[in-house]
Amino acid sequence: VRPLPPKATHQQTKTYNQQLVLKAIFDHGQISRAEVARMTELTRVTVSEIVADLLKKGLVAEVGRGPSAGGKSPILLSVVEDAYHLIGVDLANDEFRGAVVNLRGDLVHSLSLPLLNQGEAALEQVYELVDALIARTAQPLLGIGIGTPGLLDTDRGIIRQAVNLGWKDLPLGSLLQARFHLPVYLANDSQVTALAEQIFGAGKGELNLVVVKVGRGIGAGIVLNGQLHQGDGFGAGEIGHIAIDPAGEPCRCGNNGCVETVASTRAIARRARALAGAHPESLLNRLAPDPAMLTIEEVLQAYAAGDSLARQVALEAGRALGFAIATLVSVLNAHRILLVGSVTRFGQPWLEAVCAEVRRCSLAVLAQETEIDFGDLGANAVILGASALLLTRELGLSLMR
Amino acid sequence: VRPLPPKATHQQTKTYNQQLVLKAIFDHGQISRAEVARMTELTRVTVSEIVADLLKKGLVAEVGRGPSAGGKSPILLSVVEDAYHLIGVDLANDEFRGAVVNLRGDLVHSLSLPLLNQGEAALEQVYELVDALIARTAQPLLGIGIGTPGLLDTDRGIIRQAVNLGWKDLPLGSLLQARFHLPVYLANDSQVTALAEQIFGAGKGELNLVVVKVGRGIGAGIVLNGQLHQGDGFGAGEIGHIAIDPAGEPCRCGNNGCVETVASTRAIARRARALAGAHPESLLNRLAPDPAMLTIEEVLQAYAAGDSLARQVALEAGRALGFAIATLVSVLNAHRILLVGSVTRFGQPWLEAVCAEVRRCSLAVLAQETEIDFGDLGANAVILGASALLLTRELGLSLMR
Repeated sequence: VRPLPPKATHQQTKTYNQQLVLKAIFDHGQISRAEVARMTELTRVTVSEIVADLLKKGLVAEVGRGPSAGGKSPILLSVVEDAYHLIGVDLANDEFRGAVVNLRGDLVHSLSLPLLNQGEAALEQVYELVDALIARTAQPLLGIGIGTPGLLDTDRGIIRQAVNLGWKDLPLGSLLQARFHLPVYLANDSQVTALAEQIFGAGKGELNLVVVKVGRGIGAGIVLNGQLHQGDGFGAGEIGHIAIDPAGEPCRCGNNGCVETVASTRAIARRARALAGAHPESLLNRLAPDPAMLTIEEVLQAYAAGDSLARQVALEAGRALGFAIATLVSVLNAHRILLVGSVTRFGQPWLEAVCAEVRRCSLAVLAQETEIDFGDLGANAVILGASALLLTRELGLSLMR
Repeated sequence: VRPLPPKATHQQTKTYNQQLVLKAIFDHGQISRAEVARMTELTRVTVSEIVADLLKKGLVAEVGRGPSAGGKSPILLSVVEDAYHLIGVDLANDEFRGAVVNLRGDLVHSLSLPLLNQGEAALEQVYELVDALIARTAQPLLGIGIGTPGLLDTDRGIIRQAVNLGWKDLPLGSLLQARFHLPVYLANDSQVTALAEQIFGAGKGELNLVVVKVGRGIGAGIVLNGQLHQGDGFGAGEIGHIAIDPAGEPCRCGNNGCVETVASTRAIARRARALAGAHPESLLNRLAPDPAMLTIEEVLQAYAAGDSLARQVALEAGRALGFAIATLVSVLNAHRILLVGSVTRFGQPWLEAVCAEVRRCSLAVLAQETEIDFGDLGANAVILGASALLLTRELGLSLMR
């Protein structure tokens, strides 16, 4: 017999409703107590008590008076966006990036450090980055959020494996907690990106949302019923390693023909290098001194200039991604899917290739009812996502029932 | 701005804890009030109040005394398995099947009607079946649960499309409710099968569980965080229509090369028919008067007798299913996957082909941590699943926080 789920307590009800009131104020910018009561269906007395507590904590302030609805004009409440600052860190690229972020998701200060090392030395760089960020703000800190590629254990704060950084079973959460005496949350870069879009971006407020990050790596972040779905081993969304072509290129994961080997930036550059020679008319041959040196940047440049080989390569990659997204559609049936990451720079024609393949490879009625679009947080998505992870865990801002 | 989620109420806390106490008694067979209090961490007073209410409703009874732990020997409580009966219906096959089911998931009476008709007439057959089942029991009825293939809207009780039955946008829920004055719940056959395995079967108590039904059709039922995940359009788990081979056979869904066209019973029989002629040594040629008449039964028979062509055909189908399951592993990272349905009769070698393909087509660490096994409810899985749907919705027996 499995253990029972935990009992429910009246304290949980209170905490939930406190978070609900904070969310109402957060979502609406400026709002009166009466309006909060109407929207939450809590009594005015309950709302006033909760608001008094939020005022005391400095999370909310009275910011003026709204239009009168007959009687006295009501006092408007607003979240104090600098009441707490958050440290958001993105370990996802060739450089470590971080920012001091306010409660609205504005980047108050940003920093980046080129990634010079691996292993222990890379860890020192993380410390250095967080030290430098903390020095930039005098506000109380809510904590530290980290987004990083690889497989992580969010509950225990452990990086199980981050190949690029040479980390294996690194207890990054407790190391940072011990050093900075702050709550620390970490999750996979694709997963936090989904939270970023759900809290601050194009997926704001969606109950079910899938965000697919397509850059050097490919992964999906999955929000179901308002909560990040990470799976039993925190590996949910690893669609970049669905092997779609057994005879395909070897993948860094050890299998062959994974989605990443045909749809990532590296795959696109490799494919362009392989084909350029046989297409002397292609602009690709004039953008790099040697076709063997072509990078994703030249492919994007040729694509923008209308080069047909660059287009062919990009759309092929889009179709491979489309197949992976068809599996997401078939498994999850979430009506909103957002694409983010550097490959989205191929824009509308690439997106159309993705969508056409989704339609070809999943049940028509499911594909038709799925809206696939670009996310809108750009290069800061992981920093904002790491901050969103912290916000949801500490303040319950994505609370759902 | 999206609407806020609903407020939390103390009544929800009470209801949840009532369900928790019922679940504790349900899961443990016989248990004392003190033991329930210990397990749920509710006070003895609260447990006694809730138990008094369950006794009054007849859902629970005092069934004797347990061993003394020093003082008076405690009274043991047990769920009264016949306090309510449930009507579970399976519209999944060539026949409509149904049963009167008790609270433990025992089939008290079973009935089946050959499916003679489509459309309106098929609906009359559903009425007939439910009439006949209701006539078999004198116990109060909790309601009617229905599992059926096709795309359904569980919230509104509508069958959006069931091709085999010729139904489109049929409000089966409200039709049955109006006729029988009972709560009615319906969901896709694969989805209810997952609930069946989670409440009564091999996945008992799993928080995350995926059950893949492989028969004439192929679909997955997905339980996440203890709840059935149906998706925004109730189509979650439609992995049978992931198109894995664009040059493949046309599928009844309109696309080509779907998983169903290579891994279902029909696909296996068709493949056997196509290959038998070229393999005169195969037993398949002797089991049917004409190879063009081969059905899945002959393939199973030849397979059981060690026929190598039958084995080849079955394992090919297993590998195609394995790819579909690799997408489930990659997207959901649920540690437990159960396979059910008529194709599972190919047994261990087929299961091994499935598992090998899962390993080849998904991230090694995810595949290694996923246990893939057979479900254990057999032909009654859909009836039990429809009953489980009713139980969870009416009594909250899979309640999770």
